[in-house]
Amino acid sequence: MSTARITDLYEVTMAHSYLRESMTAPATFSLFVRNLPPGRGFLVAAGIESALEYLAGFRVDEEDVRAFAAALGRPTADLAPLCGLRFSGEVWAVPEGRIVLAGEPLLEVTAPLPEAQLVESYLLNQVCHQTAVASKAARCVIAAAGRPVVDFSLRRTHGLQAGDHAARLGGLVGFAGTSNVAAAGRYGLRAVGTMAHSYIEAFGDEATAFRAFARAHPGPVTFLVDTYDTRAGVTTAAQVLRELDLHEGCAVRLDSGDFLELSVASRRILDAAGLPDVKITVSGGLDEYGIADLLTAGAPIDVFAVGTRVGVAADAPYLDAAYKLVSYDGQPMMKLSAGKATAPGAKQVFRGRNFSDTVALRTETAPPGTVPVLRIVMTGGQRLDGPYALEAARSAFESDLAALPATARYIADPRPPTTAWSDGLVRLTNDVRQRIESGQRSTNNATAALPGRRG
Amino acid sequence: MSTARITDLYEVTMAHSYLRESMTAPATFSLFVRNLPPGRGFLVAAGIESALEYLAGFRVDEEDVRAFAAALGRPTADLAPLCGLRFSGEVWAVPEGRIVLAGEPLLEVTAPLPEAQLVESYLLNQVCHQTAVASKAARCVIAAAGRPVVDFSLRRTHGLQAGDHAARLGGLVGFAGTSNVAAAGRYGLRAVGTMAHSYIEAFGDEATAFRAFARAHPGPVTFLVDTYDTRAGVTTAAQVLRELDLHEGCAVRLDSGDFLELSVASRRILDAAGLPDVKITVSGGLDEYGIADLLTAGAPIDVFAVGTRVGVAADAPYLDAAYKLVSYDGQPMMKLSAGKATAPGAKQVFRGRNFSDTVALRTETAPPGTVPVLRIVMTGGQRLDGPYALEAARSAFESDLAALPATARYIADPRPPTTAWSDGLVRLTNDVRQRIESGQRSTNNATAALPGRRG
Repeated sequence: MSTARITDLYEVTMAHSYLRESMTAPATFSLFVRNLPPGRGFLVAAGIESALEYLAGFRVDEEDVRAFAAALGRPTADLAPLCGLRFSGEVWAVPEGRIVLAGEPLLEVTAPLPEAQLVESYLLNQVCHQTAVASKAARCVIAAAGRPVVDFSLRRTHGLQAGDHAARLGGLVGFAGTSNVAAAGRYGLRAVGTMAHSYIEAFGDEATAFRAFARAHPGPVTFLVDTYDTRAGVTTAAQVLRELDLHEGCAVRLDSGDFLELSVASRRILDAAGLPDVKITVSGGLDEYGIADLLTAGAPIDVFAVGTRVGVAADAPYLDAAYKLVSYDGQPMMKLSAGKATAPGAKQVFRGRNFSDTVALRTETAPPGTVPVLRIVMTGGQRLDGPYALEAARSAFESDLAALPATARYIADPRPPTTAWSDGLVRLTNDVRQRIESGQRSTNNATAALPGRRG
Repeated sequence: MSTARITDLYEVTMAHSYLRESMTAPATFSLFVRNLPPGRGFLVAAGIESALEYLAGFRVDEEDVRAFAAALGRPTADLAPLCGLRFSGEVWAVPEGRIVLAGEPLLEVTAPLPEAQLVESYLLNQVCHQTAVASKAARCVIAAAGRPVVDFSLRRTHGLQAGDHAARLGGLVGFAGTSNVAAAGRYGLRAVGTMAHSYIEAFGDEATAFRAFARAHPGPVTFLVDTYDTRAGVTTAAQVLRELDLHEGCAVRLDSGDFLELSVASRRILDAAGLPDVKITVSGGLDEYGIADLLTAGAPIDVFAVGTRVGVAADAPYLDAAYKLVSYDGQPMMKLSAGKATAPGAKQVFRGRNFSDTVALRTETAPPGTVPVLRIVMTGGQRLDGPYALEAARSAFESDLAALPATARYIADPRPPTTAWSDGLVRLTNDVRQRIESGQRSTNNATAALPGRRG
């Protein structure tokens, strides 16, 4: 199916009207997050690859036009002018994996107005959701302080695409693996997973189940130990591991109960059984807060599996993001809506040391000691390079994370670095605001002349 | 792509081991929500249709086997026994749209153990997420108290499948429309949408934009009035509507600011302009809480558009759901894990008046005055009927909602009806627990005989 009809109807009504009015001059839209959610000191740019893939393949086909016409209850012929529309524009974007802050564009699209408008819903969908999940996942990596984190979220993500993305975004921020087989294959991630409680129950007792598992899967094994009584489960696991002469690369997994108490007890049992290199994995309801609490308390946990809360970014499942018209036909644009005022003009972010970021007009020169964050990635509707390897994004994330002020990395009460606006952006914003407000005053005066009540 | 590899790796490791051990006797798994999230007095069963479609088409093909082998780092031949596996089982399910409570199965699968296990991740993904979103959307319908609610969530849902589902689930609980063009077409929903702020800005002033919109879209129009100053915007909208002699079916849309104050002001302006039948639509950050507050305060709002918070079920973005083995080879099963103990046996829910529900064994007889909620929907891997029309689900939801105690419908502090367990289920649970605990005691005794430390 063409992706062009995966859109909000108003994109279609507007594009149709623009074509009718011959308003096809270049428009620039800026996609940015207005404010960071509570509990976030930074965001990890993500969804850019999906956005660019979509734009490069965007085409309104006849089926789309029929869908548009049906949605509007109009004859197909009325919407025919939209048929064949492709994306022919230019795109600037923050490379995936780079850290961004509130008010900084993640993506800027310049294209004939109808094209630039039609793609809004899809771009927002992909960039918002993937950035939200990547940012949550990044905090888990910080909390785990070097210990491996793996993704178990598939069963709880909002649909299958979200599950696929969660696995990839985990990989992007440095997760050690994912349980999602399809995503592991697609993105070259390590697949991880062992057994469920049902497996133990089907065999009737843990020792029998563990032995059968090892028979089916030669090599290192992880045994799930909390189906009945965790301490007894660990003891049985130790017994079977010794019996099979397995230890290196092996682990026990705790999936319920008090992870601090049980990890301490498990470590003691494993060490006493002469299995100091058998690791302890925990899963179940964890995210960065749980991981940080456990490690602060000294829990001897080696691997953290995160699922539900990370895959749905449970404490911040959406971002306050916008795709705003900032320029049309050479004229800078902004809106003044209460609490939602936007800054005009195509932009660039200049990053200095320690995330001293300046949001500036794209035409401005980089202040000394700063580098631009957005780069041009499409012209004439064609990608300039890419698709980008996940490794490149991971490495961009790692560099940015290393440079990020420690306060922005806090788990409990992070403080995002503040961004400045360039003089050029401040000046343009004031100018455009004045132009609009004086325009509004004349409109209001005109409105005052509205004739009396009707009927 | 085959859907079989959209699974957690542990489903594969377990299925492989089961085949190796010839453990292919029938297993029953029960999919249920352990506890309702705070802020929910009921859940709306959803995702069942997706689940059944998946099961009916489930087949492990050669590509899947290659993906499994790659995930495990093993030769493809090792995983070959899984190739060609289909779902050949029986399924009982709650019809979509019916209201369910904590601990009540939404779906029960009985199939040879490897099959029943392999499908777990996908079933949980679809049923959890769709039930979470449908339940949130249902509360918006309750809060709107008869006024139309429409879905604007596409730009914020977690990926495209979630956007598609959110539109459908809105339709399921009685939303009046969706902005999602593709989903509207697919599910026969009314598509809705008008214009964005960018549209106004591109024209430079509201009156010009409104007139152009009406030229492109003959018939009723909705004008967005908050791009600059809402009161001035409504006045201009009224002026253009009168000029064009439009009113019936027309509306103004408020998308920012204080909706109470602005809706009152807008109503006054429209009425004064002789346009009492022009409606007021609001959008922006709303969910059931915002809707209830506005209507309690007397805001003269006619249509509520909900997006972000509903599409991601922001206050409860996941459900504490499980897919648990309750029976294998004729033997009832349960796990005892801390806080996650499950009840054994295939089940049925018998519903009496006012949601006096009894969770019982499937083999029990319906108590007088009750009817069973789960019905058999697949045998031998074939659907018995369906796919089910969305209308049927909507009508099931409406009947159940009408019968639901008022306290469960509360927006602020809902209280779910309590469910009882049948005598048969209580008895079986005690029996199985005893059996397992005595088994565990013998295992523990055996474990005590573990030889001394190694190394």
